[in-house]
Amino acid sequence: MKFTLAQINRHIGGRLIGNPETEIVTVSGLREARPGHLCFLANRRYLKDLKDTAASAIIIPSDIEPPSGKNIIVHPNPSLAFTEAFTLIHPPQAPVTPGISAAAEIAPDAIISKDASVLPMAFIDRATTIGSGTAIHPFAYIGANCRIGENCLIYPHVTIREGSIIGNNVIIHPGAVIGSDGFGYITIDDNHIKIPQVGIVEIEDDVEIGANVAIDRARFQKTLIKRGTKIDNLVQIAHNVHIGEHCLIVAQSGISGSAEIGHHSTLAGQSGIAGHIQVGHHSIITGQAGLTKSIPQNSIVSGMPARPRHIEQRAKAALYKLPELIKTISLLEQRIRDLEKKAGFNRPDPILTTIQDQTNME
Amino acid sequence: MKFTLAQINRHIGGRLIGNPETEIVTVSGLREARPGHLCFLANRRYLKDLKDTAASAIIIPSDIEPPSGKNIIVHPNPSLAFTEAFTLIHPPQAPVTPGISAAAEIAPDAIISKDASVLPMAFIDRATTIGSGTAIHPFAYIGANCRIGENCLIYPHVTIREGSIIGNNVIIHPGAVIGSDGFGYITIDDNHIKIPQVGIVEIEDDVEIGANVAIDRARFQKTLIKRGTKIDNLVQIAHNVHIGEHCLIVAQSGISGSAEIGHHSTLAGQSGIAGHIQVGHHSIITGQAGLTKSIPQNSIVSGMPARPRHIEQRAKAALYKLPELIKTISLLEQRIRDLEKKAGFNRPDPILTTIQDQTNME
Amino acid sequence: MKFTLAQINRHIGGRLIGNPETEIVTVSGLREARPGHLCFLANRRYLKDLKDTAASAIIIPSDIEPPSGKNIIVHPNPSLAFTEAFTLIHPPQAPVTPGISAAAEIAPDAIISKDASVLPMAFIDRATTIGSGTAIHPFAYIGANCRIGENCLIYPHVTIREGSIIGNNVIIHPGAVIGSDGFGYITIDDNHIKIPQVGIVEIEDDVEIGANVAIDRARFQKTLIKRGTKIDNLVQIAHNVHIGEHCLIVAQSGISGSAEIGHHSTLAGQSGIAGHIQVGHHSIITGQAGLTKSIPQNSIVSGMPARPRHIEQRAKAALYKLPELIKTISLLEQRIRDLEKKAGFNRPDPILTTIQDQTNME
Repeated sequence: MKFTLAQINRHIGGRLIGNPETEIVTVSGLREARPGHLCFLANRRYLKDLKDTAASAIIIPSDIEPPSGKNIIVHPNPSLAFTEAFTLIHPPQAPVTPGISAAAEIAPDAIISKDASVLPMAFIDRATTIGSGTAIHPFAYIGANCRIGENCLIYPHVTIREGSIIGNNVIIHPGAVIGSDGFGYITIDDNHIKIPQVGIVEIEDDVEIGANVAIDRARFQKTLIKRGTKIDNLVQIAHNVHIGEHCLIVAQSGISGSAEIGHHSTLAGQSGIAGHIQVGHHSIITGQAGLTKSIPQNSIVSGMPARPRHIEQRAKAALYKLPELIKTISLLEQRIRDLEKKAGFNRPDPILTTIQDQTNME
Repeated sequence: MKFTLAQINRHIGGRLIGNPETEIVTVSGLREARPGHLCFLANRRYLKDLKDTAASAIIIPSDIEPPSGKNIIVHPNPSLAFTEAFTLIHPPQAPVTPGISAAAEIAPDAIISKDASVLPMAFIDRATTIGSGTAIHPFAYIGANCRIGENCLIYPHVTIREGSIIGNNVIIHPGAVIGSDGFGYITIDDNHIKIPQVGIVEIEDDVEIGANVAIDRARFQKTLIKRGTKIDNLVQIAHNVHIGEHCLIVAQSGISGSAEIGHHSTLAGQSGIAGHIQVGHHSIITGQAGLTKSIPQNSIVSGMPARPRHIEQRAKAALYKLPELIKTISLLEQRIRDLEKKAGFNRPDPILTTIQDQTNME
Repeated sequence: MKFTLAQINRHIGGRLIGNPETEIVTVSGLREARPGHLCFLANRRYLKDLKDTAASAIIIPSDIEPPSGKNIIVHPNPSLAFTEAFTLIHPPQAPVTPGISAAAEIAPDAIISKDASVLPMAFIDRATTIGSGTAIHPFAYIGANCRIGENCLIYPHVTIREGSIIGNNVIIHPGAVIGSDGFGYITIDDNHIKIPQVGIVEIEDDVEIGANVAIDRARFQKTLIKRGTKIDNLVQIAHNVHIGEHCLIVAQSGISGSAEIGHHSTLAGQSGIAGHIQVGHHSIITGQAGLTKSIPQNSIVSGMPARPRHIEQRAKAALYKLPELIKTISLLEQRIRDLEKKAGFNRPDPILTTIQDQTNME
């Protein structure tokens, strides 16, 4: 739906500066914004983005000077106002048409809300409950004794194995697997004997799980994804992992068994977390990093094994000077040899030349 | 099917040198070839491979000296001749038996070519069109308003979400997901609010997509895979990515949002591309490399963050000399100290010893 | 099921030291164990774990001194005794209820054991055989001409393409793809022409395959996973790979075409193996390592490109001293310059200062 800036301003109750006829088609972040987008600024830290944005309008707080040449809505609480505008422009999708397809396969004792939607070729096993407003798509598999909350979207080819607990407003994208066995063996005489994995997976409210993700059930108790956490495609989450609230777990990252991730942490793409370690709240694991030890809150780490990012960056920058450094040291050695000669010292065989040659050979 | 070399030569019209009764069972590259295989050589660069190949016969151009002891077909256009031989030996598979299974679930207004094959337990949603010669396997899910071209192979458990456009001769392997939501949120007061992902995915002709790949739909407009590109298993392609023609995207590599990959580029296994950057045509990202900045065409990059391969290799080679180098510098310092003593200088405390000890301790 | 330690001891015939009424609910490894768990110790190497374990009881051999304060069963063969206790506490799951659902889609000439279980919405193609005790779950796809052995668990959304051979006691988790085409092309005039992939996949007895794994069929002959090997989630196994017996292939690792992995080897998480190389028996590829060359048996390698772990660790440790080392060399150069001045030598321009500045700038 399209709105004029005036319509949006009336809805959120701010003070409009600029052209009230400006057309707004969607919302966006300051950096990604394009014409037709509405953004907001809550923090002075992003003043530069405010200046550079291509957005058609921005909601800003009262204590920031409105920049000239921009359409601005001044509001005492920009993030609240933005949320209200967001909902105006993109109203929550109309609930799926309720109903249970006769072409779905549903156990007689499954309890499906009359306001849920179960599409053809879905499979729901015994003693499972499905909440109001939830849609179960074709080829979704829900095992026995699961509890699926309200207003969830379970896409095609999702597997939710027995005993899983899914909260409300959870979105699970195609091909994701919830509740597969953890990877646990005892090795006896060189044979790997499977350890029973008898725990479950619990997913709290407002979690989103990407395509072809794998989340293993716990050995005992539960693998836990707390509310508001968003998981991208092809992520691996091993047994007994606990992920805190409002984390971002980016594509192809992997979390080993029993690791714990604090609230509001970010795992960037293709990063890995070793087993049995803790990541403090508000931490960032950068892309392809491999974390092997616990880190306190507010950490930012890079590299493999991961170290604080500034240390990793300084070391990596130095690394690319290393071939040059070896040459330099060779020159210094020559100068030392000249000094030694003058001082009448015995001259040892040169060492650096050898090192340098070997380096060049590789 | 088996052919004699004479039969193949008659088909492609070359000049045969060697045993015309040689049996050929398939085609292959020079390096991988085994007895019974036919290869071709188009470029003098690979003369060494010609000498070493185990192939039973090779097609070569007129301007290359036929090697002794090999079965050779001389042809003015080896690559064309090879393609013709390829098609002779491996004729395109007979079109799937046309027909729509009564055990498939198909929306009444879907338009399925009478020459397409829809197998039992496939699902095709409303207003979707399926072209002639295309096979939709069991448990394939095709959402609403999709356009699937001709002669495509859609394997079991593929998910193609609503609005996707698939060209002709496209192969999509089991478990691949096309059109899942992009990973996009606006963070308001520490909550990640989902940004609507209202674009589509478009796959052009002759693309192949591996097992359990994930390709996200665009935020707006489209995620685009251009013609002739081949994607291996478990690859992640984020929203708004554009991949050029005839690329090779090897297994478990990942491309972040809005990145653009030029024509004829290769992403080797487990490599990663950051968001919003450009990879020039004919570039190579080597295995496990992490590219964080745009690169011009014909680049070859390695490491994380990725640098030109020769720089990365030189730095890595030097790195493994570093422990030895530290010892060397310690020796040089000792020699400087000896010189300083003789010169009557004050001697500072040794520095290198400390560094070296710390290194050894880790 | 719960047992007292006395009951377990009677079953395995050992000598009990400690409280016979101790309750045992499951088995576990010494390090992971918690109260209620039974463990075993077979090797003096793990004596420290014996001391530290939280297990409620441990089976130890006759030649190890029972630690005080622990519940102990002394047994001449602890690993055998542990296996017997394991089976007592976790008896093999009752065979699935045999039967073929009328809601499954099965080719008339498929041969299904009367003791197998085929659940609703499974698909089994022509000329495939399913052994006794095997369960085929909803949305499992078994292509034509497959042989599936006895007592296998084929979970939902598994794809097993035509011609695959699966042994006995094999577990395949949801979303795994067996037998997709290998990634093989011949490039002719910049076009990638698909090479037919006409081999198969063979999985031997006692193999476990994780969720959303991809195992490609061979170009010719077979991709082979030998008995007892365990594969975690989201692993990529390319065409013609051979994996030996009793390997552990951890999540998100990838093995390129035609590589061979020896017996009892471990690929840790997110590691990668290049094509056409050999990994010797009993080797370990550590997390995120990238192996580009063959290695002999008993190797332990790290890094990219992978080197022996102790060399990689020494180099990485030295790397983080490098920024400090550059400063040190700069100081040494200053001292050389002072000596040169005193000796009346011409002083060259300082070199190190430049390097250092560039390093700091990045």
